[in-house]
Amino acid sequence: MFDTITILGTGLIGCSVLRAARERGLARRFQAWDIRPDHALVCEKNGWADAASLSCVEAVKGADLVVIAAPTDRVASLVAQIAEHLKPGAVVTDVGSTKGHAVRIAHAAMSPGRHFVGAHPMAGSEKNGPEASRADLFEGRVCFVTPMADRTDAGALDRVMRFWTALGSRVVVETPDEHDEIVAHVSHLPHALAVVLALTLEARPSSWRERSGGGLRDTTRVAGGDPDIWRAIFMENRHELVRAIDAADERLQDLKKALAAGDESAVRSMLARAREWRAGVPQA
Amino acid sequence: MFDTITILGTGLIGCSVLRAARERGLARRFQAWDIRPDHALVCEKNGWADAASLSCVEAVKGADLVVIAAPTDRVASLVAQIAEHLKPGAVVTDVGSTKGHAVRIAHAAMSPGRHFVGAHPMAGSEKNGPEASRADLFEGRVCFVTPMADRTDAGALDRVMRFWTALGSRVVVETPDEHDEIVAHVSHLPHALAVVLALTLEARPSSWRERSGGGLRDTTRVAGGDPDIWRAIFMENRHELVRAIDAADERLQDLKKALAAGDESAVRSMLARAREWRAGVPQA
Repeated sequence: MFDTITILGTGLIGCSVLRAARERGLARRFQAWDIRPDHALVCEKNGWADAASLSCVEAVKGADLVVIAAPTDRVASLVAQIAEHLKPGAVVTDVGSTKGHAVRIAHAAMSPGRHFVGAHPMAGSEKNGPEASRADLFEGRVCFVTPMADRTDAGALDRVMRFWTALGSRVVVETPDEHDEIVAHVSHLPHALAVVLALTLEARPSSWRERSGGGLRDTTRVAGGDPDIWRAIFMENRHELVRAIDAADERLQDLKKALAAGDESAVRSMLARAREWRAGVPQA
Repeated sequence: MFDTITILGTGLIGCSVLRAARERGLARRFQAWDIRPDHALVCEKNGWADAASLSCVEAVKGADLVVIAAPTDRVASLVAQIAEHLKPGAVVTDVGSTKGHAVRIAHAAMSPGRHFVGAHPMAGSEKNGPEASRADLFEGRVCFVTPMADRTDAGALDRVMRFWTALGSRVVVETPDEHDEIVAHVSHLPHALAVVLALTLEARPSSWRERSGGGLRDTTRVAGGDPDIWRAIFMENRHELVRAIDAADERLQDLKKALAAGDESAVRSMLARAREWRAGVPQA
């Protein structure tokens, strides 16, 4: 599919891309770079990459496909650094959780004949780092691909879609702004509520945590995620996220009012509607 | 441990108690009753109970231990129905998710020489019914036992604690009111936020649900629970739950304000504190 693939950022997602792409034979050669040289070296040592570079500029030389798997607020600056050094025909994609801002900047930074196509695989973990990576991380998971109308090269779009499909993802095409609105609701809002729940319990005796069951464990799972990765996601998508929080707050007030009023049928109706909606959530 | 154990209410929890107690040889004979006769018959057919009764009064005859595993708002009325028919020395326990109200009524209903000791195993599932039951459901899980100071018989308390310990639970003793405050936070609030999240998403295009990852799935899992069981729990514990919702709403407003103001360090601090707290949540 490609001659040389370069991964910039070899944490959980970057290493999983490397391992998945190598296992599926999607390139002859794999190159890796990370801002922490030890993380890139892990890829070389484990045989996931053929070479680890000390500079991102060095790493993208000769690459047909560059996958930027850095935190979402680093994507634009990495694109700016590597843009001049891409070979003609090179395609750059990313895995960032927010798209509107980064995709616009990345498109503008590309020299003629080099192409950017934003992507966002809905896969991850509350764990981080190369050791948490998995070659099957993307199997059966949604991957957004977010072309800009009239701006994204059709051939590059096609290659990026085929790349993520080859990793096992279910590719969904949305505009960058639609993407950001959707993930504010299906990913960032759940994360925000998990954090709110954790902070509410944090103010209570710590022994209470020991008295919990599977409900608290699952409802707060994502709050275990890396604070820097999520700070970047929340800040980049904060306008959409605030709108989603406002909508959730309205539902919270509805529920609180029904409980305070002892309105049994309103409470039951909310529980029944929530259960019905929840039955349609994909089970991995 | 007992000669005869009777289970009143043979849904997920009741059948799991039956199967767990039989597997561990905690009684010579097991009797079962459910408001739906077909659910009790399932226990007899599967060999989990020796006899299914058509009446709860019939079912408790000769029992040393009666476990009421009905929805939390049915506990008091079942206790009232069976109280006159308990044999001397019989001990009654329950599995209800709220305790203050039910435990007071149940204590008051007991004839001399018969004893009630409230319990609440923190185990369950978003699935329901006998077919979802498991003999290992209580292993390693917290089980609250909630004696009333100066009211609960010490010998009965000891037998109930040993019963739940024998099923594999980690027994925790709290007063009924402390119990209700704790579970409002560690169980009912997570459920309420999962419902709020589901209802927020319900108002958005249903295709968004298909674009979700593991975060939405796990954060909403408990919202798949039975609306009648949870209506009863929410209504019985609504005063504590409203207080917990108020506390959560304050944290939600903090987060929203920090996002709206673009206050990156406040957002990061909340994420970091949530992650640290979450690291102490028991993993099953």
